[in-house]
Amino acid sequence: MTEFDFIDQLKTLATHPAARGLADDAAVLPFGRHKLVMTHDMLVEDVHFLPSTDPADVAWKLIAVNLSDLAAKGAKPLGIIMGYSKAGDDAWDTAFVRGLKEAIGHFRVPLLGGDTVSVGEGGKRTLSLTAFGEAKGHIIPARSGAAPRHTIYVTGNIGDAWAGLQIATGRAGATDFEASSALLKAYNRPEPKLEEGRALSPLVSAMMDVSDGLLLDASRIAKASDVNLEIDLDRIPLSSAFKTMFGDNEAARMNAATGGDDYQLLLTASPETVLPIDLIPIGQCHAGSGVSLVRNGEPVGLPKNLGFVHA
Amino acid sequence: MTEFDFIDQLKTLATHPAARGLADDAAVLPFGRHKLVMTHDMLVEDVHFLPSTDPADVAWKLIAVNLSDLAAKGAKPLGIIMGYSKAGDDAWDTAFVRGLKEAIGHFRVPLLGGDTVSVGEGGKRTLSLTAFGEAKGHIIPARSGAAPRHTIYVTGNIGDAWAGLQIATGRAGATDFEASSALLKAYNRPEPKLEEGRALSPLVSAMMDVSDGLLLDASRIAKASDVNLEIDLDRIPLSSAFKTMFGDNEAARMNAATGGDDYQLLLTASPETVLPIDLIPIGQCHAGSGVSLVRNGEPVGLPKNLGFVHA
Repeated sequence: MTEFDFIDQLKTLATHPAARGLADDAAVLPFGRHKLVMTHDMLVEDVHFLPSTDPADVAWKLIAVNLSDLAAKGAKPLGIIMGYSKAGDDAWDTAFVRGLKEAIGHFRVPLLGGDTVSVGEGGKRTLSLTAFGEAKGHIIPARSGAAPRHTIYVTGNIGDAWAGLQIATGRAGATDFEASSALLKAYNRPEPKLEEGRALSPLVSAMMDVSDGLLLDASRIAKASDVNLEIDLDRIPLSSAFKTMFGDNEAARMNAATGGDDYQLLLTASPETVLPIDLIPIGQCHAGSGVSLVRNGEPVGLPKNLGFVHA
Repeated sequence: MTEFDFIDQLKTLATHPAARGLADDAAVLPFGRHKLVMTHDMLVEDVHFLPSTDPADVAWKLIAVNLSDLAAKGAKPLGIIMGYSKAGDDAWDTAFVRGLKEAIGHFRVPLLGGDTVSVGEGGKRTLSLTAFGEAKGHIIPARSGAAPRHTIYVTGNIGDAWAGLQIATGRAGATDFEASSALLKAYNRPEPKLEEGRALSPLVSAMMDVSDGLLLDASRIAKASDVNLEIDLDRIPLSSAFKTMFGDNEAARMNAATGGDDYQLLLTASPETVLPIDLIPIGQCHAGSGVSLVRNGEPVGLPKNLGFVHA
């Protein structure tokens, strides 16, 4: 049984409308006059982070990936609740708390509670976070509203985190100090697009954050909206640091489009909608299904893996 | 660094009033006109449950222990969000989902979301749950309001879960079928006191759930309230199943008072307060500190361990 089979079993239990069929980034529940948005993401050692990663960066990422789910719903974060596995390494724990402090200060989100368990020395750490926030608008974006003719946008550069991972794992040498520092930072210290999410949420037809790879996440909007997302490979925004280190050819763009961990917002909106912030249009929705790629107006074959699918 | 040292480090970060200094069972946050109560408890294989435990019971307990924290705040559960570690054992996962379904139906609390990660075959499972609820009253009980002269109460029998654990682990033989079934059920399928908590929360001076042992949890109220809790060992309510299997002498009562996993509510109230449900008075608060025990009006020495302290 795969994770997906297991989640299918859970879906049969999660019948409450606020659960959104477990097919969305967050649960959305009416609470008083507003809406409570809640999300829960875990990071597991060896799966989501390397044992060699700076624990302060792990703490940052644990918070950032959850806030990114709130950003996709246009929610203002109200608090976080953490589940922590202690594995008997004091230096690790102390560095983790330092990163937690930095992230809490940076994102101005209070730590409100949680639980700590010991998994014994050498045990694999499983870190979990529940983030919750408040959405004031009546419309909370889902993945399901994209329609033919709608424009596809992202909020910023794609691929920097993939590039940072290549450097962090030694698969690419840090040939350019300034560029590699910027890419490592994008990988280790993602910045969820909270303000952008709040500004965009009343206006978009679909929105989610790019966590598992642009193409894979786009295919999820395609599936939920029953529409085709045609993405122009040349319009995917690459940073100058990315281009300096990894070039700008088709292979590099494919890596950017499938790499994951970007935490930009991916959204669709009717072409008539005036959006309040600068965005990068990367394609258009059409009748049909799935994701397709074009370059210079010509179809390009899809890569075998659209993104990072957890085993 | 122990778990307590680590939590002390976290306390320096958790400065928001809703965090209650990480010294309470739940976070309490104003949300619109009501209060949002949130709690997060984890269960780790080999620490909080045995690998031999029926996975359906693990699922039930994961939900019940979190709802018990909501009960202690008088909150009505609104939803749960689960973090699940898949360890590659399909039968385990399927049995877990069955228990989840039973618990969700029994407690009428919707599963709203979560995250699933794979820890690989043979990996230790870390299961986490965030439960959240709504408290309508203006007063949300804490541990800190007990005062001299206040009566100490529990909502029901103490020690059944300890007794069930003895049977489940083979430390005690199941000599009486009916009694041992009842005790195993108390251990495996605890019933959080949600209705009692809602009825009591506006009237108590302190309240918490008994999770780690009556005496240990009472010492936490004593510390938070800066008062002494004197408990009459003879007034601690024991079930007939407990007495049938483990007798009713001082040693048996000490085991009940320190065993943990009861999930009854422990509370204090002014003697003038008329409480709306039947409770069992087990002692009285006095000026002083800590917990003390009496039997037949005579002081009784405290046991070395007041309860189950996680390593």
